[in-house]
Amino acid sequence: MAANTISLSISSSTVASPKTLHSLQTRGLIPPPTISFPKSLPLSSTTVSISRSRVRAGPSQLMNEPANAMSAVPTIVEVDLGNRSYPIYIGAGLLDQSELLQRHVHGKKVLVVTNERVAPLYLDKTVHALTVGNPNVTVESVILPDGEKYKDMDTLMKVFDKAIESRLDRRSTFVALGGGVIGDMCGYAAASYLRGVNFIQIPTTVMAQVDSSVGGKTGINHRLGKNLIGAFYQPQCVLVDTDTLNTLPDREMASGLAEVIKYGLIRDADFFEWQEKNIEALLARDPAALAYAVKRSCENKADVVSQDEKESGLRATLNLGHTFGHAIETGFGYGEWLHGEAVAAGTVMAVDMSHRLGWIDDSIVERVNNILKRAKLPTTPPESMTVSMFKSIMAVDKKVADGLLRLILLKGPLGNCVFTGDYDREALDATLRAFSKS
Amino acid sequence: MAANTISLSISSSTVASPKTLHSLQTRGLIPPPTISFPKSLPLSSTTVSISRSRVRAGPSQLMNEPANAMSAVPTIVEVDLGNRSYPIYIGAGLLDQSELLQRHVHGKKVLVVTNERVAPLYLDKTVHALTVGNPNVTVESVILPDGEKYKDMDTLMKVFDKAIESRLDRRSTFVALGGGVIGDMCGYAAASYLRGVNFIQIPTTVMAQVDSSVGGKTGINHRLGKNLIGAFYQPQCVLVDTDTLNTLPDREMASGLAEVIKYGLIRDADFFEWQEKNIEALLARDPAALAYAVKRSCENKADVVSQDEKESGLRATLNLGHTFGHAIETGFGYGEWLHGEAVAAGTVMAVDMSHRLGWIDDSIVERVNNILKRAKLPTTPPESMTVSMFKSIMAVDKKVADGLLRLILLKGPLGNCVFTGDYDREALDATLRAFSKS
Repeated sequence: MAANTISLSISSSTVASPKTLHSLQTRGLIPPPTISFPKSLPLSSTTVSISRSRVRAGPSQLMNEPANAMSAVPTIVEVDLGNRSYPIYIGAGLLDQSELLQRHVHGKKVLVVTNERVAPLYLDKTVHALTVGNPNVTVESVILPDGEKYKDMDTLMKVFDKAIESRLDRRSTFVALGGGVIGDMCGYAAASYLRGVNFIQIPTTVMAQVDSSVGGKTGINHRLGKNLIGAFYQPQCVLVDTDTLNTLPDREMASGLAEVIKYGLIRDADFFEWQEKNIEALLARDPAALAYAVKRSCENKADVVSQDEKESGLRATLNLGHTFGHAIETGFGYGEWLHGEAVAAGTVMAVDMSHRLGWIDDSIVERVNNILKRAKLPTTPPESMTVSMFKSIMAVDKKVADGLLRLILLKGPLGNCVFTGDYDREALDATLRAFSKS
Repeated sequence: MAANTISLSISSSTVASPKTLHSLQTRGLIPPPTISFPKSLPLSSTTVSISRSRVRAGPSQLMNEPANAMSAVPTIVEVDLGNRSYPIYIGAGLLDQSELLQRHVHGKKVLVVTNERVAPLYLDKTVHALTVGNPNVTVESVILPDGEKYKDMDTLMKVFDKAIESRLDRRSTFVALGGGVIGDMCGYAAASYLRGVNFIQIPTTVMAQVDSSVGGKTGINHRLGKNLIGAFYQPQCVLVDTDTLNTLPDREMASGLAEVIKYGLIRDADFFEWQEKNIEALLARDPAALAYAVKRSCENKADVVSQDEKESGLRATLNLGHTFGHAIETGFGYGEWLHGEAVAAGTVMAVDMSHRLGWIDDSIVERVNNILKRAKLPTTPPESMTVSMFKSIMAVDKKVADGLLRLILLKGPLGNCVFTGDYDREALDATLRAFSKS
């Protein structure tokens, strides 16, 4: 295979070809090999702004900790988007701090959008937080079925039905209480209802806390592809109560870590090295480790989104492994694999392709495989996936431009990537053949 | 009835109560009684930038005019919205000027969204304009059923299906070819497809040319109310070829005039007086009269939208008669009455209520009734409408805020209006009782 043989034309200035990589690094659009984050920060120094009483080294006491959260001071990560800027509050017990939520509620009516799994756990608590000491606000709720396979137009219509039947007007607030599916659907509903109402995210999964609730991407799936219908729509705030992770199933926990690992690979080598030391602590829900991983992930995402809200270039790098992963989700059937599981296998494929192109050395391939396996994530696609399934589904990916599929690939030392359509097509074919049957 | 008895609280600063009216006028948010447009402009001076060969006084030659339009210079109305600004091109034969369209096409793929009535008339011409001398562009089309009753989610999904099956990517352009329903649906599809693609409006009805294609309101209906789901999304350009009105049915022609009359009533008394002199010429499709009415309507709308894109106040005044009208459309069944027919009856109701409040004198009531009758538009709702139907449907109107229904009402000399929730509720009840059965 001829690495770096350019068989496809560069389609636009947003493509980070080898020639433009250095230029992008120089202008700060892609991080240079030397990252400014300190290496492997000790935990004690990474949780400064979180109340000490909630930050413990060991996971053993976590499930039985008292909800003494009124004293907790949230960590705040600001997403800087001009007049659409908003804060992400991160901390344990934040759902008990009603003033955090209430300061972002507009109007007198709130619609909480949640699902059948989350509602019994956190709906009452959320309604209480929205209404305590605030008798002018009435809260309605709509409880959707749980799972990616319900992230469709029919389910979205249930949100509109409830909003209209409850006579919610333009000054209402929609609240997303749940994981990524709920956040995406509630956000798109908020963007579209009466052409836009206020909205708040309360993510209850690692996946949503570190990724999907940050940055304003909302939408639903189409039977032919993921997230093909949606809007860029920013929330008023994101409230991350890390206590909600105590009820998260292990498989969901691992799925979220796929996105955490992604941040390390694409732009934060020190964070990746920290993860290599702490992956088991994260799986065991060590609260300090979780708080740090959520904070640092949100900081990375907020930094990228602030520079490129509408994904004209840099933001696409957050989709490492996602083009392959979306093909798995679509081809294998929504809901069979969790999003992070598909992203994990997709990340291995993107890393494999980067290696075939000669863009990264063997050690990165090995380290990615190792950390994903330790996180109990899959490193190969489902056996039923074929090369032609991958190709046909990837052809409708949102990153296709004028017929050219652009991919996020690693290039250079750990923590560097490119978003490019300028790659040897044979490398893509070879990766697809290596990971799926013809 | 106690006029001006204030029984409802002012719900926000966007309400133009009597107290704030003067302030709004002073700040230029609502036009003062003295309008700066010259009175009754002679036609010859209003069509300056339209090719003389296309501007004739009489309608008799219109149907057989040669398509000698390459020489036509379009009138351009700019909609000033910062980085979302766009031009409205107005003129006869503009669909023959392929360079106008092509300069606004992004990417290599175009999806034309049209309907069963317009497609046989103008689809080939539009495809030709998009592709002539431009072999890199491929054009797909989707032909929807015709009518307001199809402005729903099921029909919208046909646009997404076609776009995805045709593998349209983020650099594609959607083109709306048709009336207001097509423009609203295509615009919302463009806003949502891959979270937003470029879009162009080619309105083919008076209604769409003077109103719905200008200003970026897009959306679909819900069974419980009109336009409840949608987005604010601006086109790249609007291309108004007034020749397309030659094939418009008389009833559609009259329907569009309801919106033209609206501009006069809410902010442009001179335009209203011009209409009183020229309403028969408009119905007879006098091309010069039409070109002037379209241009002046677009200027009025562009001026309002530029000041208040997201309808926080002033823009709502464009909805004179629409709250009553939407109730008629929803209650009577989408598609039974045309939008402008419902707006006409709704305008008479709003004017009646303004008069009951003592805000306008008798002559305005009479002039509004007269011009609508001359335009062959209804001045009362369908007999099947009841007071309770009006009330329940109006309760979910987008202009309800925190439970208070705000209305656009005329107040003062001709050409002045207010958007307010600060009115005697008895006047509303009296108007509903006068125009519908209990």
